[in-house]
Amino acid sequence: MLFDTLAIAGLGLIGGSIARDARQRRLAGRIIAFGRSAARLEHAREMGLIDAGYTDFSDAIATADLIIVGTPVRAIVAQARACMPGMRPGAILCDVGSVKCPVVRDIESCVPPQVHFVGAHPIAGTENSGFESAVSGLFDGRICVLTPTPRTDAGALERVGRFWEALGSRLITMDTQTHDRMFAAISHLPHVVAFALVNAISGMQGFESDILQYAAGGFRDFTRIAASDPVMWRDIALMNRECILQSIDCMKESLGSIRAAVAAGDADTLETLFRKSRDTRRSL
Amino acid sequence: MLFDTLAIAGLGLIGGSIARDARQRRLAGRIIAFGRSAARLEHAREMGLIDAGYTDFSDAIATADLIIVGTPVRAIVAQARACMPGMRPGAILCDVGSVKCPVVRDIESCVPPQVHFVGAHPIAGTENSGFESAVSGLFDGRICVLTPTPRTDAGALERVGRFWEALGSRLITMDTQTHDRMFAAISHLPHVVAFALVNAISGMQGFESDILQYAAGGFRDFTRIAASDPVMWRDIALMNRECILQSIDCMKESLGSIRAAVAAGDADTLETLFRKSRDTRRSL
Repeated sequence: MLFDTLAIAGLGLIGGSIARDARQRRLAGRIIAFGRSAARLEHAREMGLIDAGYTDFSDAIATADLIIVGTPVRAIVAQARACMPGMRPGAILCDVGSVKCPVVRDIESCVPPQVHFVGAHPIAGTENSGFESAVSGLFDGRICVLTPTPRTDAGALERVGRFWEALGSRLITMDTQTHDRMFAAISHLPHVVAFALVNAISGMQGFESDILQYAAGGFRDFTRIAASDPVMWRDIALMNRECILQSIDCMKESLGSIRAAVAAGDADTLETLFRKSRDTRRSL
Repeated sequence: MLFDTLAIAGLGLIGGSIARDARQRRLAGRIIAFGRSAARLEHAREMGLIDAGYTDFSDAIATADLIIVGTPVRAIVAQARACMPGMRPGAILCDVGSVKCPVVRDIESCVPPQVHFVGAHPIAGTENSGFESAVSGLFDGRICVLTPTPRTDAGALERVGRFWEALGSRLITMDTQTHDRMFAAISHLPHVVAFALVNAISGMQGFESDILQYAAGGFRDFTRIAASDPVMWRDIALMNRECILQSIDCMKESLGSIRAAVAAGDADTLETLFRKSRDTRRSL
């Protein structure tokens, strides 16, 4: 048992999946949750995932030694701030946001001296979201990025790391700026591109019928992430704005290179560009 | 049995898969193949997929009543021209190219009056290619687009349609222009975008390690088609140039709309754009 009482603020896909595995793997003696929906909390309690649920940050927050904020990324800072005053000395706060610079900066700016904060980003999303999509084993074999800063307590970082490892995650540590630039590239950009592609195709004029019905399996795989939660991705795009704009510009340039080669009928360049991509993708 | 002798010119993914299913489903009394590699033809013969193989368009072409040209799209017209003189009166020539306007136009311009030509495009590719990737059931439940012109013989069209239906395909008929515009949008553009995305990300500077190792499952699904054959896609891009350029421009515009909303911090527009994409993708 890693913690006496684990508190989860926000029982969505991530929070709900953490509750499932923390329970099954006995990572905490007690699991409590905070959320907006009393019905959902009661449902989670009846399922045996949590011991108690609260719709506001009651005195129960003082019983927790690990609090994980699993709310949508835009709400993390406010939720963290709301629970800080009630936390007991030595307790650890951890978030799971997919954008780290603004979240870590804003939480660190107001974290009380007697509690610890560790930023985390488990790479375990799917195109689904919400408590209904929570599953056991969501983090097994997946990466969890920890983003400590010079202010992060070494002991708290280690305990949070052990918790994520017990959930099956492989730990990676990097600074918040590197995280946000990297995930703008490998996660946020692909989502933006998928959204843009589906809109581009569905917006094309002059066809008698809905052309997407003729799309093959490749298109379906390719655009699965275009079915992701629009509110979540709106918030990620705005919170990681500068990095995402840079990534979009790289994409525009890359697409522009292919366009130029097609327009010029430049077979050699085109083959080189496609071969580079194929080789990169195959090496994964 | 739909045909006495089926001839396949080019035993790649498509040609090889046709041979497998035509044999298993007894769609032809005899199956012969033409190809560059004597070893591959001999291998296919030993596997029982074909009765005989030839490395040039020998007299055997005169025995065929259906000839399917399954070569890469750039070679189709030359292959079709090479076998036309030897074809017997009433025989049918069919191609499987994924670009139709130039192929159908060029073949029709030289097809002898005594033989028939029907353009076809089975939507059954994978990111793999080549005879080694040929499988049974490749066409089951997949669309096969037929692109007849005013010159197409109705009887030949019907017989070719029955053949593809016997391979499990669902038939769709459209003119060559509609086909090329539509597939530029739903197939060629996604491939170009996947190639461009992988190149954009792998080309990003300033990371200590290969960032693609941190990519999640979504990215892998999304970019699977970026591992497609660069030579095949080079040829498709050049043969369907105008339509692909138009599609790329639609994509640039769509990506530009998202970029503008991110840059402006316009949450409402961003959510609307993402929601539109999500709803479209979910309706598939």
